[in-house]
Amino acid sequence: MLFLSEKDIKQSVSMKEVIDAIDHAYHIYESGEFLAPERMHIEDNANTLLFMPCFTSNVIATKLVTVFPNNQTCPTIHGLVVLHCKETGEIKAVLNGSYLTGMRTGAIGGSAVRHLARKGDTSLAIIGTGTQAFYQAVAACTEREIKHIYLYNRSHKKIASFRHSLIEWIGQEVQIHPVSSAEEAIAKADIVITATTSKEPVLPDDPHLLKNKLFIGIGSFQPTMREFPTSLYRLADKVFVDTEHAITESGDLAMPIDQGLIKHESITFMSQHTTSGVQLNREKAKTVLFKSTGMALFDVVVAHFMYQKSIENNIGIKLDM
Amino acid sequence: MLFLSEKDIKQSVSMKEVIDAIDHAYHIYESGEFLAPERMHIEDNANTLLFMPCFTSNVIATKLVTVFPNNQTCPTIHGLVVLHCKETGEIKAVLNGSYLTGMRTGAIGGSAVRHLARKGDTSLAIIGTGTQAFYQAVAACTEREIKHIYLYNRSHKKIASFRHSLIEWIGQEVQIHPVSSAEEAIAKADIVITATTSKEPVLPDDPHLLKNKLFIGIGSFQPTMREFPTSLYRLADKVFVDTEHAITESGDLAMPIDQGLIKHESITFMSQHTTSGVQLNREKAKTVLFKSTGMALFDVVVAHFMYQKSIENNIGIKLDM
Repeated sequence: MLFLSEKDIKQSVSMKEVIDAIDHAYHIYESGEFLAPERMHIEDNANTLLFMPCFTSNVIATKLVTVFPNNQTCPTIHGLVVLHCKETGEIKAVLNGSYLTGMRTGAIGGSAVRHLARKGDTSLAIIGTGTQAFYQAVAACTEREIKHIYLYNRSHKKIASFRHSLIEWIGQEVQIHPVSSAEEAIAKADIVITATTSKEPVLPDDPHLLKNKLFIGIGSFQPTMREFPTSLYRLADKVFVDTEHAITESGDLAMPIDQGLIKHESITFMSQHTTSGVQLNREKAKTVLFKSTGMALFDVVVAHFMYQKSIENNIGIKLDM
Repeated sequence: MLFLSEKDIKQSVSMKEVIDAIDHAYHIYESGEFLAPERMHIEDNANTLLFMPCFTSNVIATKLVTVFPNNQTCPTIHGLVVLHCKETGEIKAVLNGSYLTGMRTGAIGGSAVRHLARKGDTSLAIIGTGTQAFYQAVAACTEREIKHIYLYNRSHKKIASFRHSLIEWIGQEVQIHPVSSAEEAIAKADIVITATTSKEPVLPDDPHLLKNKLFIGIGSFQPTMREFPTSLYRLADKVFVDTEHAITESGDLAMPIDQGLIKHESITFMSQHTTSGVQLNREKAKTVLFKSTGMALFDVVVAHFMYQKSIENNIGIKLDM
């Protein structure tokens, strides 16, 4: 069995490659050649243990995630991914699931930037300064030559360390501007990424500020959570999702569909778009929205890719069972 | 995170200690202070992936098991146990789940021998020569001074290697007799353990051969599977189980209850028996039956014990996440 720590994974794969893996996962999603039951969970008071298993045609993976919202001194989320051989069920690898989740969620946003942003987009607004927001910033910078990042969070506590880590990863050539409002953050941005767990819109409900941008919503994953404001749905020329789940389970789409602001049938799956070979015409589709809630298929494809690259490069710790 | 291989676990805990851990698990079962949902599973043609999570008051564990019945060159079952901190959800350890399962299933039988066999019992019949049968033999020899083991399996292929491994573990002072029928195996035995996946009784339906013995059934875990013959139910003075599941899900109890051979309410839970402090009077209860199908609580208690002992003794590989 191979063990891959955060450091090992960092050493063996780049964000660009993980975005490629996400695009590969969209191909599999479109082919239907995978088996991913509803995620399973157990609740113990405020705490949750989740299992997200998925079988593809060549590997099996399960992500185990604990969510302990009251943790004070350590992260609230801990994850582990177990990879099994598809032919025999043998355990091939155990991977740091928290780092994998960050990379794969970043790469989902990165794939949206790759396929939906204008080629010349250079400015990015990030709402939220948590772990997921960080990887979103890294992934967006991987796909476009971002020159300015406008960073906003309700609390200012994490901004300094977020900025520090981001410069460390993506280099000094990107200018990072901590700003004091969401209005200020999105005003000059071509691409806007929201990565909060908010229950109320985190963007200004102002068509003038919202128009002609690409919006990527990563945060909301429950019907009671939303990040996008109402006027964004009226403006949006095109709405994309990663999964059916993003339509039914996130307040960012379930609510406006309920309210008749958008129609379910007008929503496009990213898997259809990325496999069609047709480029999005941003002259026509000026305001574009992508909503993701993720899926186990992303985890299994990304985990398998990380495993294969690590084996190729002799990275990780080989353990006798 | 601590990784514990088969070799590490073997070095840190004895079968006697694992039987103690099973008895401790019965205490927790009786107190009700644990949370173990129905096991979850995904089927992919003939293959199955199972999750068996359990929360106790001080630890969380999940056993992941793959069952690939068509494996030819490697075991059909592979397992891994993931241990989480109860306070924070952090991953404390990953253990070889196949070895843990063998030891804990052996110890369930071992606990039954400890509490239900006569003090002076010295002879043992084992029906089946698979992995589970092996650990049953080890555990029975841990609890009684077994002098003779009568070993029977329909196929003779595995008998030699089973015998070899058993002598290696429990020493030459036990005489191991491979025999050519179940009748011959049980004729001189005080304790009979069945550990097959049979759908038909593997013991002779002969009251004369069956009476005055302790029977431990480990193999059948589905309503279509059974190992015990009909006349055993008529003979049995006392019937014990490890869980409610053993009554409803194993053909060894579901079938005779259906047929009116035994009554549901006459069955005793081992947790009640072991925590009562009352010893079973084998002068009165001459023919005794114990049926186990196991449960996730056993895995979590045993895994936590293995973890604690390994930490104490500085055994295993410490991995940075």
